[in-house]
Amino acid sequence: MAIRSILLTVSYDGCDYSGWAVQPGFKTIQQTLNDAATSLIGRKTTVHGASRTDAGVHALGQRALIQVDCPIPTENFQKALNDRLPESIAITEVVEKPIGFDVIGDVKAKLYRYTIYTGQTRPVTRIRYCWHYPAKFDIDAMSEAANSFIGEKDFKSFASAGDNRQSSVRTIYQCEVKQEGDWIYIDVEGNGFLYNMVRNVVGTLTDVGRGRIEANKIGEILNACDRTAAGSIAPASGLCLMWIKY
Amino acid sequence: MAIRSILLTVSYDGCDYSGWAVQPGFKTIQQTLNDAATSLIGRKTTVHGASRTDAGVHALGQRALIQVDCPIPTENFQKALNDRLPESIAITEVVEKPIGFDVIGDVKAKLYRYTIYTGQTRPVTRIRYCWHYPAKFDIDAMSEAANSFIGEKDFKSFASAGDNRQSSVRTIYQCEVKQEGDWIYIDVEGNGFLYNMVRNVVGTLTDVGRGRIEANKIGEILNACDRTAAGSIAPASGLCLMWIKY
Repeated sequence: MAIRSILLTVSYDGCDYSGWAVQPGFKTIQQTLNDAATSLIGRKTTVHGASRTDAGVHALGQRALIQVDCPIPTENFQKALNDRLPESIAITEVVEKPIGFDVIGDVKAKLYRYTIYTGQTRPVTRIRYCWHYPAKFDIDAMSEAANSFIGEKDFKSFASAGDNRQSSVRTIYQCEVKQEGDWIYIDVEGNGFLYNMVRNVVGTLTDVGRGRIEANKIGEILNACDRTAAGSIAPASGLCLMWIKY
Repeated sequence: MAIRSILLTVSYDGCDYSGWAVQPGFKTIQQTLNDAATSLIGRKTTVHGASRTDAGVHALGQRALIQVDCPIPTENFQKALNDRLPESIAITEVVEKPIGFDVIGDVKAKLYRYTIYTGQTRPVTRIRYCWHYPAKFDIDAMSEAANSFIGEKDFKSFASAGDNRQSSVRTIYQCEVKQEGDWIYIDVEGNGFLYNMVRNVVGTLTDVGRGRIEANKIGEILNACDRTAAGSIAPASGLCLMWIKY
């Protein structure tokens, strides 16, 4: 049988998982998908993800690739995998790709959305999917600071320790702060992200919004190439990987 | 010190609780609130709820009364209780009521909202708060059937076994079916509800929407005064107690 590469679009509630990547002894998204694919296909199958999301981070548009040589038609994979997955994970799309398709290397852009709730009382049915930060924020200052992230830059100041990627240069296409009532949404689109980069960018933007960092200081922070120059890290619960484009 | 009656507005994610009412050996909303109030006030305190919501049912506007004779000012109760509650429960409002206020008997109206997701793939970040029912529904037929519930009627056909209230006559002020994309919202407002009544009404409405029960048969089903005359029961996860008016 011919080998096929199948690209899955995956959504998940990250609350009950120790992140994407397989870690012996921990429940992870990748492990759960591996188990579902192995059960479906009848032989040990590994799912290769486009993004290693952290513990507690959510996704509506993660991508993952499997290579199969089984007789199951590609269009049957979505339902068959969903039937084998817990309700906190779902395959939302399945598409065949040419052999040689690189699920990480061929990524053109990704969008992360970060959600902050600023109202006084925690929103119990959204608390798993936001950062509850009851405070007033200067949205104009945050937007000005957000603009400074756009372009090709060295983001070393926004990478947490543990990042071992060779280059810390990334291109940010969009960094937008939107306010709707008590909610703040921060959309960050780029060609790639360092370890904890979006959460460090968001934490710094909230420090700007609270007047702890001046809006025009982002350039200096980037130039420092030093994590301690930037602001705090935002919690994982507010972060969601919205989509990945190839 | 004078005894005060304090009315709490309570929101909760019901997923991880065995319903509202205290049951020895189970984690319930009332028990969790009792523990928080007891810890705050320093003596055994019981919170009396307006509605006994079932396991898995959510609330944005449950009401609960406590009687206290402690020196803590009423306006401090909200924050002090929230600090002692898990993130799945929150007090959203606190107001003092005259002694003699009856948290159950004085209710004028309650609104429950039921949420159905009809898209093919489960919505992972909303699955805890809806019924995932991937199908096409005849919304016009459901709306016609919903209208038949409005008014003062005997709802015995829509009460699950275990209801031991004396009368099964209730008044429904509003019963509305709304569709927004893949979502269906069913709002039911009444002066009171029998055990599982909203879930039985919603289950029957979905049976109408799927063509299993004719829209004009609701009158007959009500007249039967027999649970087996009505349709299926909708799952708890889609139900939310939105508000209670006094």
